[in-house]
Amino acid sequence: MEKNAADRLLELIAAKKNPTVVGLDPVWERIPEEIKKSAAEAEKDPIRTVAKSFLIFNKMIIDALKDIVPAVKPQFAFYEQYGSAGIEALEETMAYAQQQGLVVIGDGKRNDIGNTARAYAAGYLGKVPLADGSSRTIFNGDFLTVNPYLGTDGIEPFLAVCREEGKGIFVLVKTSNPSSGELQDILDRNGEALYENAGRLVARWGIDLIGEKGYSAVGAVVAATYAKEAAKLREIMPGALFLVPGYGAQGGTAADVVPCFNEDGYGAVVNASRSIIYAYQSEAHKRRPAEFHLAAAGAALAMREELYKALKQSGKLPAGW
Amino acid sequence: MEKNAADRLLELIAAKKNPTVVGLDPVWERIPEEIKKSAAEAEKDPIRTVAKSFLIFNKMIIDALKDIVPAVKPQFAFYEQYGSAGIEALEETMAYAQQQGLVVIGDGKRNDIGNTARAYAAGYLGKVPLADGSSRTIFNGDFLTVNPYLGTDGIEPFLAVCREEGKGIFVLVKTSNPSSGELQDILDRNGEALYENAGRLVARWGIDLIGEKGYSAVGAVVAATYAKEAAKLREIMPGALFLVPGYGAQGGTAADVVPCFNEDGYGAVVNASRSIIYAYQSEAHKRRPAEFHLAAAGAALAMREELYKALKQSGKLPAGW
Repeated sequence: MEKNAADRLLELIAAKKNPTVVGLDPVWERIPEEIKKSAAEAEKDPIRTVAKSFLIFNKMIIDALKDIVPAVKPQFAFYEQYGSAGIEALEETMAYAQQQGLVVIGDGKRNDIGNTARAYAAGYLGKVPLADGSSRTIFNGDFLTVNPYLGTDGIEPFLAVCREEGKGIFVLVKTSNPSSGELQDILDRNGEALYENAGRLVARWGIDLIGEKGYSAVGAVVAATYAKEAAKLREIMPGALFLVPGYGAQGGTAADVVPCFNEDGYGAVVNASRSIIYAYQSEAHKRRPAEFHLAAAGAALAMREELYKALKQSGKLPAGW
Repeated sequence: MEKNAADRLLELIAAKKNPTVVGLDPVWERIPEEIKKSAAEAEKDPIRTVAKSFLIFNKMIIDALKDIVPAVKPQFAFYEQYGSAGIEALEETMAYAQQQGLVVIGDGKRNDIGNTARAYAAGYLGKVPLADGSSRTIFNGDFLTVNPYLGTDGIEPFLAVCREEGKGIFVLVKTSNPSSGELQDILDRNGEALYENAGRLVARWGIDLIGEKGYSAVGAVVAATYAKEAAKLREIMPGALFLVPGYGAQGGTAADVVPCFNEDGYGAVVNASRSIIYAYQSEAHKRRPAEFHLAAAGAALAMREELYKALKQSGKLPAGW
């Protein structure tokens, strides 16, 4: 049996003393000129040039961050929009990050009925059947983000793969965007919000996937931008790892993410994407676009420091940090 | 300005006197042997062989159905699970279906925050920026299915592309699976179910995308397997086209789908996937796997007849059918 995905992620967090995941969200307009040039030399087709630039950019970011952060989170949309060329860059990015020892959280927010969810689970986390009778991994992510709107039978196929292959999922519960409350905050007749109901389902889905460290391979997406809701959800799902978006470019601060952590100082991974990978475009760094990867490393180190301080101040610093 | 997507779909429904959409959900194990052999001759790599078999299969299905049905709905999961090779087959399937005059509903159930939703909208419905400064379509679907869990700002980027490019979306409201009620049926303090709240949002999102025939390019996924809920939703969203899953392999009958139609006999497209494309594996056809496309055409004709009878019986047959 494969090692529990939550344990694998928590080990890397402890080893690097850093509960950060960096979003790999490549956008053509924001890729440094030198990378664009190299990509254009390697690939003549204008779609493949974009995809190639993403891969070169990501590899340099991964190299610069691999000793600082435990995990990366490619946002599928940015690759998918370029079709098969973009997906090739996504596959290679995920494989490269794992070769460099990072946990890979595929951010696809997938969801469908059981028969279809099985295909998503096989492709992104498990193995697919091939023409020669064998089966093999395709994306081989460690975690995948999923949407809970369809209920248990749309999630069960993911749980099956998590159990068989030592993989994990993060289920959307309370998202970071301004209008997340339109459905997620609707109160039921017991005065419980939809996000609380979703949180209870997540806790139930994760029960038989709890690892040695007490956390489940079934985690939850809980936004830094809604700290009060996060505190409630921390109680509803004590054993869930929270994937926390909204830090940095979306306005969340280190203090905002503290409620997402348990008293042991674990239980959350905080995501930052644009504020790290495009740090080279900030006032402090913009004179040296060729050093974009160093700017990213600097921003990641600064973020680790901010999280360290906020955890320390709240009395939640993990033992030994 | 491009023609409204609802109008385009309704015109084809009227021309073919058939409110059916056929799901293109290729599964390696169910592809006929002859197609598998042709694919293996064309592509040596076992992943590319599978993808190639999907494309050959789909093209023959499309050729057989193009004069019978108005639309096809590739379910992305079945392609995505094979990575870039699968996506290539998806791109070519979508392009081929449109060349044959069919409306293409991309079934991806995508959802994310605004910045990311923009990338999905660009890739699946609109245009993406390329390395040479131009922009072009990639998947160029007519419609995309989306998930409403994140609220308005996760939907707005899709609406923008719908307005600019004459495209449409179908928003998940009440899904066909057994556990769809776990979240979707939760009653709020006014006694309204979550699916009703989602339906009200869909009606609002669609207001400024209503076409000449009175239907919006913002439709809703409403399952045939929950007829009572469908009737309520028909009232909440009179101007929404319903994409109705659950017919056939999932147990819904022609009588079950009638509440999804308006009194004018329009307002719904009924999906069937496995019961059509794998009709060749049914008792009646299984002696002749090489005629899988003919079996599919036969099943599609039978389904059209069933829908015709059910609409007629309920007094909802469109004028002139």
